[in-house]
Amino acid sequence: MSHADFTQMWRDLAPVGRSASSGGYFRQPFTSAEREVAAWFLEQCRSRDLEITADEYGNVVAWWRPEGASGPGVLTGSHLDSVLDGGAYDGPLGVVSALAAVDVLRDRGGTPGRPLGIGVFVEEEGSRFGLACLGSRLLTGTTPVEQARELRDRDGVFFLDAVAAADLPSDATPLRWEDLRQVDCFVELHVEQGRDLVDRDAAVGVASSIWPHGRYRFDFGGDANHAGTTRMEDRHDPMLTYAGTALAANEAARLAGQRATFGRVDVHPNGTNAVPSRVTAWLDARADSEEHLAALVAEVERSAVDRAAREGTSAAVTAESVSPEVVFDPGLARRIAAPAAGTGRAGWPVIPTMAGHDAGILSGAGVPTAMLFVRNPTGVSHSPAEHAAEVDCLAGVNALAETLERLTRT
Amino acid sequence: MSHADFTQMWRDLAPVGRSASSGGYFRQPFTSAEREVAAWFLEQCRSRDLEITADEYGNVVAWWRPEGASGPGVLTGSHLDSVLDGGAYDGPLGVVSALAAVDVLRDRGGTPGRPLGIGVFVEEEGSRFGLACLGSRLLTGTTPVEQARELRDRDGVFFLDAVAAADLPSDATPLRWEDLRQVDCFVELHVEQGRDLVDRDAAVGVASSIWPHGRYRFDFGGDANHAGTTRMEDRHDPMLTYAGTALAANEAARLAGQRATFGRVDVHPNGTNAVPSRVTAWLDARADSEEHLAALVAEVERSAVDRAAREGTSAAVTAESVSPEVVFDPGLARRIAAPAAGTGRAGWPVIPTMAGHDAGILSGAGVPTAMLFVRNPTGVSHSPAEHAAEVDCLAGVNALAETLERLTRT
Repeated sequence: MSHADFTQMWRDLAPVGRSASSGGYFRQPFTSAEREVAAWFLEQCRSRDLEITADEYGNVVAWWRPEGASGPGVLTGSHLDSVLDGGAYDGPLGVVSALAAVDVLRDRGGTPGRPLGIGVFVEEEGSRFGLACLGSRLLTGTTPVEQARELRDRDGVFFLDAVAAADLPSDATPLRWEDLRQVDCFVELHVEQGRDLVDRDAAVGVASSIWPHGRYRFDFGGDANHAGTTRMEDRHDPMLTYAGTALAANEAARLAGQRATFGRVDVHPNGTNAVPSRVTAWLDARADSEEHLAALVAEVERSAVDRAAREGTSAAVTAESVSPEVVFDPGLARRIAAPAAGTGRAGWPVIPTMAGHDAGILSGAGVPTAMLFVRNPTGVSHSPAEHAAEVDCLAGVNALAETLERLTRT
Repeated sequence: MSHADFTQMWRDLAPVGRSASSGGYFRQPFTSAEREVAAWFLEQCRSRDLEITADEYGNVVAWWRPEGASGPGVLTGSHLDSVLDGGAYDGPLGVVSALAAVDVLRDRGGTPGRPLGIGVFVEEEGSRFGLACLGSRLLTGTTPVEQARELRDRDGVFFLDAVAAADLPSDATPLRWEDLRQVDCFVELHVEQGRDLVDRDAAVGVASSIWPHGRYRFDFGGDANHAGTTRMEDRHDPMLTYAGTALAANEAARLAGQRATFGRVDVHPNGTNAVPSRVTAWLDARADSEEHLAALVAEVERSAVDRAAREGTSAAVTAESVSPEVVFDPGLARRIAAPAAGTGRAGWPVIPTMAGHDAGILSGAGVPTAMLFVRNPTGVSHSPAEHAAEVDCLAGVNALAETLERLTRT
């Protein structure tokens, strides 16, 4: 791989689904922007003579099976969808780096002893159907299709209808979990979503674990009424119950050193001169242990219910998805992070992450799994301001190539 | 008019634009539902041989000019659009009652000495383009068309494009303000939006004044970020600044005995796992004097700006529309409210209202104006629960007919 090839891949992707005003990306699953990057990935795989396998939900694994390669494969990859108005790197960095790492390995002329797969999983962010890692959950059977059948986007479109309307690769070999689960390991490269590597002055790191986290829907109900004529003391305004709960959630997370965010709100009827009848808001909560997560969510729920009782409104909480803590394979992490013999390269730091990933799902499904992180100078992600320096991205490609080379040695 | 005719008109309107789930109405201007009720009104006018006049924005005045009627006309009417998920009566009650009052007067066989007009003004609620009473504002020149040109709905559609796409009556006589302003007076009948008439045990009342009120857009800005990986202390989350401001506005209005409501919120990017970059919220504020309104809004703005400074976010306030106090023509109100000679009917109570109306705009434009209110048992409005008993609606029709009979006597 040349530097120029890597740069060209980023240039191909840069304009797709990008907002001219914010500079952020809108690549929700099965929208035209996301299908365009998915088609670009298939084209890249075909130009490298990779064998494309795909399942019925849009998940794809493209295989490099060099002559003589045998035994369980090694899987890498990530996702191509984005949050609403997200950054360029979250997802695509792992896919582009995987393609570039194959190029590096081929340039070096060595032949992997095992097949090497590049996976792209759909709806990792949960930005359209509300369930993060939906593609890898369905592929692995972590989430049954019966549950996915119920999921709708904000416009009421069912998940399976969106899949059916999308132009999925029809000529691909079927991708089946009973085959894929046989892989030796999965390594996902991802832009870091914090500043741990900045503090450690390292371009690349290895993941130890993922914090437990979940999404909880809060339904606040009240009485719609005229904003002018209804006396303040006669109101049952769910907006106020929500506002108090959002502040309480922030305080609870701050005091506990955990994370609680209300980033999504849906108000009905959402008219300037009407007291709302309903406010629905989604809590994203994360903590350093499952016990702390449960305590944090219980505290926010108690605050909501107490406020609702005082204010004559109602509050009901539904856990839409809860992900337990993921501890990545410690032996694999140690093996990847260890200094490279004969190159003088120091070891990579091993750090936890507070963000969910497909790697967490595959790990939960029994695949030995590891993650590589690439330094993010500001730590900002899920934002147009997300960034990684090109030199660090290239360090990531080299780290991934080195890792895949080690892991595919028979 | 028979009771049956009045009931039939309500039956015609009942299903149009009604939500099957909430029972509320969605009759935003220039949508198919609103155009259907507008077409229904024209049909009702044609069947009564009224002369239809219309302007280029969709405002309509239909005239009954009996032989021998002369001099400045008397205008009645209201609007047919609704807030999002609104009630059946707010607007349509004044239009249906006006048609019914014409029927009553014709049944009685008396001939008005002056022309009698029924007006229907578009976008009274401001539910689509954000400026209440937009139709009557444009007709009277209170708002210049240059300002309306800038208005867009939530989907980015410009007001004038929505007007152009609507099927406005093309064969009507032009409705011009220089003609209409010559009317002797305007009387708008409206469902009451409070419980004043319930407390006074009266089916019908007359308006004294409209509280000053306004709509203010609050733009809260912050830094988009990942909801999991960003430490609470590193955030600049505009949702929290908004939540604090919403609670502060409520408290300020409660303590002052005024009204402040945040009923509409728009969050960007509105994703569960993203700290928002921007929260836009609209304050509806009303007070018993212009001085108190300014003080209330200033207090909410100060609270927002102070919080933003503490939280590393930003807050900017834009007054989107401010309506001064309207004091209706006191002589006209007294004349309408006075006991009816020879019938033994007691006088009608004269009460203020906190809701804006086209009557306020016509009053501001120099037309002697009055309003009749019909009792609303719960006081609820801008909600599917808005109600008026049929017997009170019929009392309203009779009151309007009696009033128009008096006012059209030469």
